[in-house]
Amino acid sequence: MDFFRLSKKDLITTQEWSMNDINAVLEWTRYLKESYYKGDKPKLLPDKTFLMLFYSISTRTRISFETAMTELGGHAQFVESKTTLLDAGESIKDTAKAMARYAQGIGIRLLEPSVGNKVIREYASHVKIPVINMADDRFHPCQGLGDIFTIIEKMKEIRNKKFLVTWANSNNPRSWCSVQSAILIATRFGMDVTLAYPSEHFALEPTVINWCKQNADESGGTFEISNDLQDAYNSAHVVFPRNWMTAEAFEIGIERELELYKRYSDWICTSELMASTEKALFLHSMPVFREEEATSEVVDAPYSVIYDQAENRLHVQKAILSLMMGGMPS
Amino acid sequence: MDFFRLSKKDLITTQEWSMNDINAVLEWTRYLKESYYKGDKPKLLPDKTFLMLFYSISTRTRISFETAMTELGGHAQFVESKTTLLDAGESIKDTAKAMARYAQGIGIRLLEPSVGNKVIREYASHVKIPVINMADDRFHPCQGLGDIFTIIEKMKEIRNKKFLVTWANSNNPRSWCSVQSAILIATRFGMDVTLAYPSEHFALEPTVINWCKQNADESGGTFEISNDLQDAYNSAHVVFPRNWMTAEAFEIGIERELELYKRYSDWICTSELMASTEKALFLHSMPVFREEEATSEVVDAPYSVIYDQAENRLHVQKAILSLMMGGMPS
Amino acid sequence: MDFFRLSKKDLITTQEWSMNDINAVLEWTRYLKESYYKGDKPKLLPDKTFLMLFYSISTRTRISFETAMTELGGHAQFVESKTTLLDAGESIKDTAKAMARYAQGIGIRLLEPSVGNKVIREYASHVKIPVINMADDRFHPCQGLGDIFTIIEKMKEIRNKKFLVTWANSNNPRSWCSVQSAILIATRFGMDVTLAYPSEHFALEPTVINWCKQNADESGGTFEISNDLQDAYNSAHVVFPRNWMTAEAFEIGIERELELYKRYSDWICTSELMASTEKALFLHSMPVFREEEATSEVVDAPYSVIYDQAENRLHVQKAILSLMMGGMPS
Repeated sequence: MDFFRLSKKDLITTQEWSMNDINAVLEWTRYLKESYYKGDKPKLLPDKTFLMLFYSISTRTRISFETAMTELGGHAQFVESKTTLLDAGESIKDTAKAMARYAQGIGIRLLEPSVGNKVIREYASHVKIPVINMADDRFHPCQGLGDIFTIIEKMKEIRNKKFLVTWANSNNPRSWCSVQSAILIATRFGMDVTLAYPSEHFALEPTVINWCKQNADESGGTFEISNDLQDAYNSAHVVFPRNWMTAEAFEIGIERELELYKRYSDWICTSELMASTEKALFLHSMPVFREEEATSEVVDAPYSVIYDQAENRLHVQKAILSLMMGGMPS
Repeated sequence: MDFFRLSKKDLITTQEWSMNDINAVLEWTRYLKESYYKGDKPKLLPDKTFLMLFYSISTRTRISFETAMTELGGHAQFVESKTTLLDAGESIKDTAKAMARYAQGIGIRLLEPSVGNKVIREYASHVKIPVINMADDRFHPCQGLGDIFTIIEKMKEIRNKKFLVTWANSNNPRSWCSVQSAILIATRFGMDVTLAYPSEHFALEPTVINWCKQNADESGGTFEISNDLQDAYNSAHVVFPRNWMTAEAFEIGIERELELYKRYSDWICTSELMASTEKALFLHSMPVFREEEATSEVVDAPYSVIYDQAENRLHVQKAILSLMMGGMPS
Repeated sequence: MDFFRLSKKDLITTQEWSMNDINAVLEWTRYLKESYYKGDKPKLLPDKTFLMLFYSISTRTRISFETAMTELGGHAQFVESKTTLLDAGESIKDTAKAMARYAQGIGIRLLEPSVGNKVIREYASHVKIPVINMADDRFHPCQGLGDIFTIIEKMKEIRNKKFLVTWANSNNPRSWCSVQSAILIATRFGMDVTLAYPSEHFALEPTVINWCKQNADESGGTFEISNDLQDAYNSAHVVFPRNWMTAEAFEIGIERELELYKRYSDWICTSELMASTEKALFLHSMPVFREEEATSEVVDAPYSVIYDQAENRLHVQKAILSLMMGGMPS
């Protein structure tokens, strides 16, 4: 079981995890999912508490983590920052150190640009119990792990398969965490990753882009950026179209941001574009904005695996929680 | 145990359930309540998750469902729509299909007129797991089942007993779901149901009224509408006074609505009115507005069974949850 | 085990509890904490529900109670009054009596001046299940019990040891409940308690002060009030600096209140002041406002036991819950 002894205490981004750690999570996820369908949900975290701190709202992340803890025999507390004194002036150090006395793990969601990731790291620096990033302004590692688990589950062999992560139009500007986590994890697994967006306004974080290149070099995959919509779809094996905001979104305001998007309203995933792929899977971290990011025809097509992908969040998180919170059988 | 195999996946309104299904719930409730008082709470839904989606707020419904799941060995997640991305533009189809991967049952409360029931039905149409109506603009089936369980528990024989459901004054206009569910279920059980209100402004949904007549025909009971306060109380065996708003309430606004009520401020359940009944039980779905819907003297009288009625929500819902979510002993 | 049979149904303030009851809680806390560190969390409240009603927000109280119930095998429901119909005009009697049918214990937090304690007592008067004060405008008995448990744990012998509870500057005016609970419990245990504040503006409730004097007389301790900052710290064995608002705070408004504080900005707990103590422990109920109530140097010093004190809330509350909700082994 040495394979399952993680080298990292926290899960902030998969990029800081070794392939050994990542593979341990995926292996353990496979086992737990199989057990689940056999009607067996091992109680690996009996009477343990996982504290979920939500500075930002959520649907799937909250519900899937809470279900995960129930199935593991423990309990997840849903703590919204606004229902607490968290914003009343207490230092993060004090908040974190007290919470660590009441829980065996802490999850945090804070999407605020330039703030989220820093705050999560500060929490982690003060406590000995594991801190799990439930999405910040930069990363969403549980989503990334769920994505790669789903791709492997559906395709078996994924090396040098083309994974298109493409910007898509929307009236709801979205954060970067899901797309950045998708390209970071896929490049670790030797996929040929294409990141597509219509103009440099939509460039992602340089650090992340550099990591992706480096990952591809190490894993035998490739990483490229395209501004050509049609070319990006050609021969893809997996497609993930998703809106993300520009780096200037908060500066220029929502109206100008949305006006910019309108120029690229053809950046929507359609059946026509999907037809130029290698019978690609359609992935999405959800919520998907129908007729904006993708047509309903695509979302509802047989090649769309978004609900399986959503389900895999549950199994991946059960693996993460049980591995990180000491719930492994000895 | 075939008796307990429900023919319906969802509980939207008792009107769509067969008497066989309804009787199964009542029978099972009796068993679970007895077990409860013997100190035995069978863990019929171990590590199962019941998702409670609250678009509208609640006290008793939320608490009693959450307690029910705890006692059944599972967990109820309290999910307020405003703490999620539910209103951010995701289709109900996608929300429902993803949620169904994280839970074994979904409860929904949405009181918004012309919307609530439709949305609940849409959820139900997209998922294979049971959907339970936790009160919408039209129905509150768990309340209705709790009401009839309480009446039978207290009176044993209820055929052709007079059940008065009467409009009552209040400064808090209430929705139709509880009263409509009360008359729908009582007419199924052969009671002589009188629905009383002071003027046609307070007429309920024609479809529901027609169902009540049809139910009474089939069950050997009667259903009538009265505008005469005193006559309505005469010889009643059970009285349920409750405010409900007019069909025009949202159109005319709260002020004009309340002004209308003032004309009928004598529509309050008093000891004098109760004296003209056949020592009737006093029922109320709560919250009861004292000195508006009923005098405190009535609410606190020995014939008032409102707290027992509230308690029965717990037992009825444990029966519903365990029957619908597959928690029956095989 | 007769020792553990409490004479009081409710925990509103420790002042109404006998020393026998208080010692039972502390004894049981010791046992549960020891068991916890041996990896044993006895499931004393299996499938029991503790209802937590929060009219006022909270961090530690909510989280520690919810964890306590999980570890005892039951479940704590987090119920914010604003997510319910509690403020919609239902009488407390009806709310309480219905809730008592769904739970085996009720905790309430309501800090509103002149209201909180009264409302909690009203709840308690209507129900047979225990009501636990989770902080009101006057008392915070779980904090007080956690404080005294921590002092005894750290010092063993506490009779006639000097306990300084001192007003401290802050930009966040705080309620009286924690400081009043600290002086009430410490005087029961024969400590020499000094309550210090800079001017009569900060006088606490006369009833509480009288109780403290009476407690000291009975326990062989002392109780005095000081307006001399340096003198108050001299020879102290335990120091608890904490802001509390003046009795006129709500009348004069936050701005004038804060202006008053500025006159006493030297009322901050510093290393220099701590140097004049008998190597005193630093206690705080948290959140502590660093550089206002105490310097970070003090908060982070080896003699600061605030995180242990926070942890003890968990163990004390597990003892309280299990003793009060009938979870004792027979």
